[in-house]
Amino acid sequence: MTGVKIPGAKIPGAEILVRTLVANGVDTCFANPGTSELHALAAFDSMPGARCVPTLFEGVATGAADGYARMTDRPAATLLHLGPGLANGLANLHNARRACVPMVNIVGDHATWHRGVDAPLTSDVEGLAKPMSAWVRTVPDAASVAADTAEAIRAALTPPGGVSTLILPSDSSWDDTAAAEPVIVAPPAPAAPDTDALRAAADALRGGERVVVLLNGRATRAEGLALAGRIAAATGAKLYAHTGATRIERGAGRVTVERFPYPIDLGIAALAGAKHVVLIGSGEPVGFFGYPDKPSRLAPEGCRIHTVAPPGADALAALRWLVEAVGAAATPVPAQPLALPEPTTGALTADSVGQSLAALLPEGAIVVDEGISSSPMVYTACAGARPHDWLTITGGAIGIGMPLALGAAIACPDRKVVTVQADGSGMYTLQALWSQAREQADVVTIIFANRRYGILQWELGNLGFRDMGPNARNCTELGRPDLDWVALARGMGVEGGQATDAEGFNRLLTAAFARKGPFLIEAVI
Amino acid sequence: MTGVKIPGAKIPGAEILVRTLVANGVDTCFANPGTSELHALAAFDSMPGARCVPTLFEGVATGAADGYARMTDRPAATLLHLGPGLANGLANLHNARRACVPMVNIVGDHATWHRGVDAPLTSDVEGLAKPMSAWVRTVPDAASVAADTAEAIRAALTPPGGVSTLILPSDSSWDDTAAAEPVIVAPPAPAAPDTDALRAAADALRGGERVVVLLNGRATRAEGLALAGRIAAATGAKLYAHTGATRIERGAGRVTVERFPYPIDLGIAALAGAKHVVLIGSGEPVGFFGYPDKPSRLAPEGCRIHTVAPPGADALAALRWLVEAVGAAATPVPAQPLALPEPTTGALTADSVGQSLAALLPEGAIVVDEGISSSPMVYTACAGARPHDWLTITGGAIGIGMPLALGAAIACPDRKVVTVQADGSGMYTLQALWSQAREQADVVTIIFANRRYGILQWELGNLGFRDMGPNARNCTELGRPDLDWVALARGMGVEGGQATDAEGFNRLLTAAFARKGPFLIEAVI
Repeated sequence: MTGVKIPGAKIPGAEILVRTLVANGVDTCFANPGTSELHALAAFDSMPGARCVPTLFEGVATGAADGYARMTDRPAATLLHLGPGLANGLANLHNARRACVPMVNIVGDHATWHRGVDAPLTSDVEGLAKPMSAWVRTVPDAASVAADTAEAIRAALTPPGGVSTLILPSDSSWDDTAAAEPVIVAPPAPAAPDTDALRAAADALRGGERVVVLLNGRATRAEGLALAGRIAAATGAKLYAHTGATRIERGAGRVTVERFPYPIDLGIAALAGAKHVVLIGSGEPVGFFGYPDKPSRLAPEGCRIHTVAPPGADALAALRWLVEAVGAAATPVPAQPLALPEPTTGALTADSVGQSLAALLPEGAIVVDEGISSSPMVYTACAGARPHDWLTITGGAIGIGMPLALGAAIACPDRKVVTVQADGSGMYTLQALWSQAREQADVVTIIFANRRYGILQWELGNLGFRDMGPNARNCTELGRPDLDWVALARGMGVEGGQATDAEGFNRLLTAAFARKGPFLIEAVI
Repeated sequence: MTGVKIPGAKIPGAEILVRTLVANGVDTCFANPGTSELHALAAFDSMPGARCVPTLFEGVATGAADGYARMTDRPAATLLHLGPGLANGLANLHNARRACVPMVNIVGDHATWHRGVDAPLTSDVEGLAKPMSAWVRTVPDAASVAADTAEAIRAALTPPGGVSTLILPSDSSWDDTAAAEPVIVAPPAPAAPDTDALRAAADALRGGERVVVLLNGRATRAEGLALAGRIAAATGAKLYAHTGATRIERGAGRVTVERFPYPIDLGIAALAGAKHVVLIGSGEPVGFFGYPDKPSRLAPEGCRIHTVAPPGADALAALRWLVEAVGAAATPVPAQPLALPEPTTGALTADSVGQSLAALLPEGAIVVDEGISSSPMVYTACAGARPHDWLTITGGAIGIGMPLALGAAIACPDRKVVTVQADGSGMYTLQALWSQAREQADVVTIIFANRRYGILQWELGNLGFRDMGPNARNCTELGRPDLDWVALARGMGVEGGQATDAEGFNRLLTAAFARKGPFLIEAVI
């Protein structure tokens, strides 16, 4: 079979699925199929240019599709096995939902006539999909595959981008139908910014009171940040990227932006004295968690929130309008100069790793940041590095780093990907390393081996627990035995090395950047 | 704090949670907490005898709780982090649901007053829990913790046993309340068997037509099988355990029972000519999947189904009644004689591994079987081994083996646990090996390294796909690179060795059985 349709010929639903995906530019599928998806899997071989990237765990597939979408602004597909397979992918779908990226999950299900007998793998697939999807539909029959697949893609591409889950009973896959013409979709444009909110925000920016601008979506790409930077330079407003910004283009030549802090006290402090918060592509600043006797909404009392461009609205149009309105049209972009630190020496810490990474990071690199407690130091250190992209965990569901890196590397095979990975979080989806090896993905993984859930130990203190009992200690320490990440990587066919001081780390990182393909560095900090 | 209550004193909800669990015998918790569960975690240190077993991935926690419950008939708790943490545990909850085991999941959530601001980790936790739980409730406040926890335990222990999910907003955890008395529950007894169905089944068993008896639940323990064996001996009925039977007590001195076959054609053949199917603790025989032009219900046309004891009814009472009714009261139990094969030599295959395992298996061992395509050979080979228990994947959600073994080992520290683990399935929850190392669980893991999803390649043929294209090949082969399971185990602190022939396998298995603690053997077949 090829993708050429013979007029009037009947073909199986599975082939129409793949034709429709490819006709709409969805040619990459991160896959972990089972028996009920075998017709769909085989159909990828009926269509030239359609590519399945194998994964050994579904959370790798969904996280990789997120990384692919962040770098291309196009959806990848996933191929998942019934309810349990989808369930394994849900944590990273949660992150994708918070990242507002387009994605098309294809989830197999039993044949429609087989569901009623409650076979062992039967479950409520729609019920599982809904909490983490913007759009869910079960295809009723083969004749509906083309239209439903197209609708899934359209929904995924509707601004700001969302997770579509298309449930494909296996008879919809294997039955033949004459409804074999792929349906091509044209996704809608982003909504216009809110004019009243824009006017009020412009007044605030010109008014001399403290204004904080919170950015996400297109506003944290280079073009958006250049506009925001000019507004800030002209008005004195303080810019922040959202704590879990989807993608930040940064480094030399870009406008540097801090991320809004994760610790609640720092978040409250960041907004102290603010009379106005302007939201462009971002929701309002709220606590990552609720804490006793602390607020959920972090802006001070009396502070006005100006939602000029919620997610899905045209953030760049909003920024351009504000540049004009605040008289910043002639203001130069406050571009970050190249500022490469020397690689460090001596003890290995999150700071020294960050500094060495900043020194050595190649131009055009994609940094995937699931550093958790080590993340702020590395982000700060890389501000003046060669221009790069920064992707981070958006929804707080840990286990996104190495899958996200896989997807980014598949999307951008000519760019170096660097994963800044906490050891505890890395263990959730370590299977991604095998897919990186299989695909020879150009990814350098830096494991921050502090051998504990550092963030939880910090939060225990934050919550007032001074002494850990044995259960608290057992559940927040990763030692006894220590994880050996070099052995784990080798077990999945990825070469690596361990660094216990800065010199060793620099040697390994230099070597890793000088070659192509996956490499892992366990940085014992 | 200790577990002693001062009358009238207010204590935090988290401590009442743990008191209520322990007061009802739920003293073991497989945990992977986050910030919103830290009060609950710390509360385990306020109660003597309460034990948290740390896991590095939630599917390990839920699978281990399943294994614990299968061996003790009591629930373990799990401690999971909001929606995404629960999501990661859902695949093995699906298996637990199909196993009908008692389990109490404690899932943290944001403080009730923090949910409205849609913080990054907010999701529909109840919506995620419902598809895989028999009982779900969100605790509204600290005053409700004792009663709601007790109700969760009662629901879990209601025959046949089920998954309870108690969602605990963090303010319910940290707020103080005077409602601090643990509530003790008395779970209901199993329902009586269906008298009419029993009479009809007895008539069928005495009637001389072909009768197949399908067993699960208590009917596949030693006592149930002894009764069923006498019925079969007296009447000529054919016994099968359910394909995914929860726990089979077998080996020398027990009544050997085949498992109903997974391949649909073999399942149909197993029922050919049957005029009656008698269900004791089991649902009716259905296809594991639906296939084109094959039935969902496997019993032949005109065959009568007698549901004498559905899951939750008293299977042993049903069997005892039938023994009397068919006149088997004096029939000797057809006990399996001890029949130890010689350990094999030469090439390593699933058959030879099974034979060597049967030869060396210590008395009282617990075999955890996620061998998938290698499983039938090993199950058959061990029929005459020393007495042992057999636990298998119940719901088809792969990734249960090594977690189930962890839980069984925690439940039965004086018994050797052997995991018969397919390599593809093992990759879903390999993090269980670290918990096995941390707990020094007495588990020998045998990896069947056939380096492919063998069952999928078999199903591709079964579905009529003769030639695999590159995508189908890429997604069903596990090589390029091969997984190195000995390195993976070492990376998590578990010693191991690779065997490529039977002699090497026998040496490793003998050594592993001679010591305590976790050990892994990669059997390249």
